[in-house]
Amino acid sequence: MKSYQEMSREELLREKDKLEAAYQEYAERGLKLDMSRGKPSAEQLDISMDMMDVINSQTKLEALDGTDLRNYGELDGIQEAKELFGAIMECKPESVIVYGNSSLNIMYDAISRSMTHGVMGSTPWCRLERVKFLCPVPGYDRHFSITEYFGIEMINIPMNQDGPDMDMVEKLVGSDDSIKGIWCVPKYSNPQGISYSDEVVRRFAALKPAAEDFRIYWDNAYAVHHLYEEKQDEILNILEECEKAGNPDMVYEFASLSKVSFAGGGIGVIAASEANLAQIRKQLQIATISFDKINQFRHVKYFKNMEGIKAHMMKHAALIRPKFDLVLDTFERELAPYKIASWIRPNGGYFITFDTLEGCAKEVVARAKAAGVVLTPAGAPYPYGKDEKDTTIRIAPTYPAMEDLKLATDIFVTCVKLASIDKFLA
Amino acid sequence: MKSYQEMSREELLREKDKLEAAYQEYAERGLKLDMSRGKPSAEQLDISMDMMDVINSQTKLEALDGTDLRNYGELDGIQEAKELFGAIMECKPESVIVYGNSSLNIMYDAISRSMTHGVMGSTPWCRLERVKFLCPVPGYDRHFSITEYFGIEMINIPMNQDGPDMDMVEKLVGSDDSIKGIWCVPKYSNPQGISYSDEVVRRFAALKPAAEDFRIYWDNAYAVHHLYEEKQDEILNILEECEKAGNPDMVYEFASLSKVSFAGGGIGVIAASEANLAQIRKQLQIATISFDKINQFRHVKYFKNMEGIKAHMMKHAALIRPKFDLVLDTFERELAPYKIASWIRPNGGYFITFDTLEGCAKEVVARAKAAGVVLTPAGAPYPYGKDEKDTTIRIAPTYPAMEDLKLATDIFVTCVKLASIDKFLA
Repeated sequence: MKSYQEMSREELLREKDKLEAAYQEYAERGLKLDMSRGKPSAEQLDISMDMMDVINSQTKLEALDGTDLRNYGELDGIQEAKELFGAIMECKPESVIVYGNSSLNIMYDAISRSMTHGVMGSTPWCRLERVKFLCPVPGYDRHFSITEYFGIEMINIPMNQDGPDMDMVEKLVGSDDSIKGIWCVPKYSNPQGISYSDEVVRRFAALKPAAEDFRIYWDNAYAVHHLYEEKQDEILNILEECEKAGNPDMVYEFASLSKVSFAGGGIGVIAASEANLAQIRKQLQIATISFDKINQFRHVKYFKNMEGIKAHMMKHAALIRPKFDLVLDTFERELAPYKIASWIRPNGGYFITFDTLEGCAKEVVARAKAAGVVLTPAGAPYPYGKDEKDTTIRIAPTYPAMEDLKLATDIFVTCVKLASIDKFLA
Repeated sequence: MKSYQEMSREELLREKDKLEAAYQEYAERGLKLDMSRGKPSAEQLDISMDMMDVINSQTKLEALDGTDLRNYGELDGIQEAKELFGAIMECKPESVIVYGNSSLNIMYDAISRSMTHGVMGSTPWCRLERVKFLCPVPGYDRHFSITEYFGIEMINIPMNQDGPDMDMVEKLVGSDDSIKGIWCVPKYSNPQGISYSDEVVRRFAALKPAAEDFRIYWDNAYAVHHLYEEKQDEILNILEECEKAGNPDMVYEFASLSKVSFAGGGIGVIAASEANLAQIRKQLQIATISFDKINQFRHVKYFKNMEGIKAHMMKHAALIRPKFDLVLDTFERELAPYKIASWIRPNGGYFITFDTLEGCAKEVVARAKAAGVVLTPAGAPYPYGKDEKDTTIRIAPTYPAMEDLKLATDIFVTCVKLASIDKFLA
């Protein structure tokens, strides 16, 4: 089979006619399909419904240490929950603060606190002329929204196959004291599904920042979100590596159960050095009285330990894996021969990153939309929504039902082909 | 019976000997009693345990509008929860944003947002030379802690029997544009149990602030926390009054179910004008994906409506009222004749404010502590913990069991008498 590059103008035009016909047929069906949202499906949520039985009116709502879970207290979380997250994040329970339902909110809070109060005694960022963050791209749009909301200047860092371009990170972090942080999703990254290599993690831990208040914002959102029993990415423990490298205070690590139990109904945590936690606790005791300990207890009682979490995640994998396969197999079959796109087959996480030919992503998204398929806006995985090369599209295969996903993927590849041909014809 | 004022030095010394003997006996018992914490008792928490049965693994976790409560979405709360709080706060459901488990956190968030982003387009407070808040005193220590944490200068406003000194509030708010807010607990105030009169509320609503970004922080924490079926304070609706007075944007109202269902396991909300809510929503969509809708649903399904809330609160009242009575009756009996203290008998809320003779509060608290009774630190209900006259002690009668409370109150009055005699003898 010829790639589009190799086709003559006539061959391309013939191909285009065929594709336009198919596209029209789709468009006339008035479909409403959605591949934009990194949300679990209803079937995935069903997996956790048994959790709703672990507490009833007869349950003694008491922590192991006797704390009444129904009353105020235990500002930084119940011990049992710290232990569960310690296992997930491979750190000491004492390194964990258990918050409410949202790890994104913990990150927002960390930035907001740094703006008004600085980091462990540093000048509050709101008093500085400029504050910058490094943003490995493509990345998680909600990270970038937080830094944008606070007027923090964002600098793109290209992602390699094993993590961010560390030469660039080291050079910038080491030389510019207005750089205060870097957003990382180190395992099954959003949106590429890349896991950082040991070397990358070690280079992170060994950074020599010009700014004393520089922190790595290590959003380990997909720590346990494997797609396979047998192929599981593992990354080095950043807290441990930072400590070894003499930089114990340089990282905030975040994790969440939102895509383990219920989206928005889970538990979020931060893990960090004792010195960092001391500052955070000082803020927390001003900001709230205590988080929802009953929900912490519900999760601990249900999952029990790391084995419980692992077994549970395999149930998710069983539902998600066929969806990833469907999308990726379609790409292989329908697009690979034409050499008009690239993508990564991840071992976990929630997304597939798709790269079109340069200058085609927006058009693909627009065409798909016109045919009833909603995709994440092109550019979304970049700071300020600006994808200079206009190539990246984030695909979220988890939420739609299989048949919807199949149809949406077929339409998607049709749009990719059409946009690519237009590019060659132009 | 003679008041201490009327007693001779000899009479006072005899009285002191008697009291010292009683005090020594208490002290030798090695008691550990606590009247410091505004927490519900275990018995109160038991009242709500049935709530744990309204959701189980078979429950369809779907909102009335079809929203899957287990997934992301409905950033500003489910409609049912807005309606329940609309009833509690006597406002339209559309005026409510339902957050997570803590109304204190919503207040913290409001101040933090104003620091970094201003209020509806005003200059962010962190860029201003100075920012001030008015603080009716005595007031809620955690309010003052928030403003102190952000370096906001606090100005004391004396409380009258029907609310803050409005002459002073009007004068200051109208003339000083660095005054950006005032903390209010308008119903069964913390700690005095005072409810604002209609005139006070109307004068609040009619304020003409020098600062465009001045807001009334109306913490309606005890909106439904009556002690009696027959004697219930009602206050005017501040949102409505502000609208009538042409100041629709001048107030944020807060409420919470923490002392209705579970402390720290309830739901907190804000109610405000559409323009205020628009700014808040803009922030929220950066700060989180959604709050815990399952817990919102659990509360709505359990309480159903305002009647459900009212009936439930009467169960709390039945447990709390005898405790308030015990303390207040002891004061009447043991202290009133000596004219050495004053207090208010509230119709609701969580506290009793006790005023000693000038300069005696710290000593009473210290003496009580030495005899095994923990009280809220003297000065706590004042900004920076500074009670210039050293008279105010906040008493929290809800948490201890009746027998403990009786003993603690007996010890307390003994300490008050001793401190008062020392003052007269000095």
